[in-house]
Amino acid sequence: MGDLVNEFNDYRGRMNERIMEGDNLVIKRLFNLDTNAYMEGALDVKTKEMLGLVASMVLRCDDCIKYHVGQCKDAGITKAEIFEVFSIATIVGGTIVIPHLRRAVEYWEALG
Amino acid sequence: MGDLVNEFNDYRGRMNERIMEGDNLVIKRLFNLDTNAYMEGALDVKTKEMLGLVASMVLRCDDCIKYHVGQCKDAGITKAEIFEVFSIATIVGGTIVIPHLRRAVEYWEALG
Amino acid sequence: MGDLVNEFNDYRGRMNERIMEGDNLVIKRLFNLDTNAYMEGALDVKTKEMLGLVASMVLRCDDCIKYHVGQCKDAGITKAEIFEVFSIATIVGGTIVIPHLRRAVEYWEALG
Amino acid sequence: MGDLVNEFNDYRGRMNERIMEGDNLVIKRLFNLDTNAYMEGALDVKTKEMLGLVASMVLRCDDCIKYHVGQCKDAGITKAEIFEVFSIATIVGGTIVIPHLRRAVEYWEALG
Amino acid sequence: MGDLVNEFNDYRGRMNERIMEGDNLVIKRLFNLDTNAYMEGALDVKTKEMLGLVASMVLRCDDCIKYHVGQCKDAGITKAEIFEVFSIATIVGGTIVIPHLRRAVEYWEALG
Amino acid sequence: MGDLVNEFNDYRGRMNERIMEGDNLVIKRLFNLDTNAYMEGALDVKTKEMLGLVASMVLRCDDCIKYHVGQCKDAGITKAEIFEVFSIATIVGGTIVIPHLRRAVEYWEALG
Repeated sequence: MGDLVNEFNDYRGRMNERIMEGDNLVIKRLFNLDTNAYMEGALDVKTKEMLGLVASMVLRCDDCIKYHVGQCKDAGITKAEIFEVFSIATIVGGTIVIPHLRRAVEYWEALG
Repeated sequence: MGDLVNEFNDYRGRMNERIMEGDNLVIKRLFNLDTNAYMEGALDVKTKEMLGLVASMVLRCDDCIKYHVGQCKDAGITKAEIFEVFSIATIVGGTIVIPHLRRAVEYWEALG
Repeated sequence: MGDLVNEFNDYRGRMNERIMEGDNLVIKRLFNLDTNAYMEGALDVKTKEMLGLVASMVLRCDDCIKYHVGQCKDAGITKAEIFEVFSIATIVGGTIVIPHLRRAVEYWEALG
Repeated sequence: MGDLVNEFNDYRGRMNERIMEGDNLVIKRLFNLDTNAYMEGALDVKTKEMLGLVASMVLRCDDCIKYHVGQCKDAGITKAEIFEVFSIATIVGGTIVIPHLRRAVEYWEALG
Repeated sequence: MGDLVNEFNDYRGRMNERIMEGDNLVIKRLFNLDTNAYMEGALDVKTKEMLGLVASMVLRCDDCIKYHVGQCKDAGITKAEIFEVFSIATIVGGTIVIPHLRRAVEYWEALG
Repeated sequence: MGDLVNEFNDYRGRMNERIMEGDNLVIKRLFNLDTNAYMEGALDVKTKEMLGLVASMVLRCDDCIKYHVGQCKDAGITKAEIFEVFSIATIVGGTIVIPHLRRAVEYWEALG
């Protein structure tokens, strides 16, 4: 995996620790809830990660996109499938999503 | 199906016709593209409609939510499944999504 | 002009008065500045109103859209022209803009 | 209190019940967390409700605005104070916030 | 033209190619449609590029802003004119747009 | 104070000057109005800066967040207090706010 992936994961891990040390109960519970939301339930993990990815894309959050692109990869999504997720995000969110699509494709490729 | 559903569909159908009569090529092609985006491909229709729904919820567009809730119903999604889509939309988009969640649940129930 | 137009203008005028009575200096100055921003300068009024319209559409604010559609009409914009403004708003903002496009077209037609 | 207030509260209460009956654990916990977030802590309730209001205004969610305007009233905020919250929301969020400001002022007055 | 411009164009060009290689029909057609939307029609290219710029600014997409600032420059827009586009974007979108305005001005100056 | 703080302040100061040199009356007045909005009035400066911070967080503008985190620090806000502002921003705005929360915490710590 390229530097892009390692840098993202390192910063994310390091700052999540700093946030936890802030010891705010609402924030800590929200982090837990976030983890629970993507666990297998009526929908499987792969579907939920695609939902998280499309939501992150239309809201245009690069870090959230990177995270869910990584999770989709881990869940076994194929290139054709992730491009269909990308296509729905771009048609719903408009051309304003395209710069984020560029970075999503770059990150997908960096995952190897 | 209740009045909520019929009124939504009637207005949507009537105004889409008025838009088509405006005869703008870019808009007409975008409408076609929108239809294509949700057709079966690498991902099935049900998955794509859930993607459309979660995108609509985090962007907080009530009409888009109604449309995709209806499409999800037609694609055979269960109540437990749609509530998991709702849960991801609400955790990603925050409590600001809750008023739209209320109307989504109301529409889901109106579909019968 | 139809009821849609009158109701919008009445509510807008009545509530703007109530806001002014709140006597908050920052809000009052912002209202003045808003008026100044659309006055003829290096760009003419028609261009500025189209800019206000496209901004309102991608931000998906129905009342703002109605206001600027009315102003565009007053500035002499043609149907072909306003549909090109609509097309740029919809391509940039995505299909999430379409429900607002429906209401924009309805309001444009109500202006007669 | 006027009909505006009663209708809002009735619909909100009724649909929150319907959401709870969906029995999705993530959603139920998020609702609990939302309640906790506004409880007195390092900041008092009045400050937190003003924070909730300004967030709701810049995100342009009318129902959220109504809810927090009501909570601010209950927490003893004065008219001059709430107009300063309104002014910060409008300067940060821009004139696109103004239609929501109109409805916020209308609701504030309906609270009596 | 400065490094800022070259880096932006290089990355944009390179990643657009990677996206095209993904060979997703919806995305490819949307890219074509995007090109068509800014071609001369009832409105001239300069007006359309200003519309694209103001939309990009209120949606706060730095890359989209850079692209349309460049296109506006090519279409012969003057400094006084582009600052009026900036002013409408900032008044509609609020002070939250200002950091993007800073980068827009920087890019405009880098274009020379 | 760390490099993060100095770089932010330098760029902000330098580009604000370039914007002022553009000599657009609407933009100049909006900058003045922005300053006025946070001055002591019915609400004190500390409360207003917390309002500016929460608005910046839910709108997910990193530069705006940095600015208001700095202002909150100057106004004497404690760590427990700022984490409560963070918690409301994150619960209202959703997990999409978390990457901005990471950078907010980093900046808060860089202020020393």
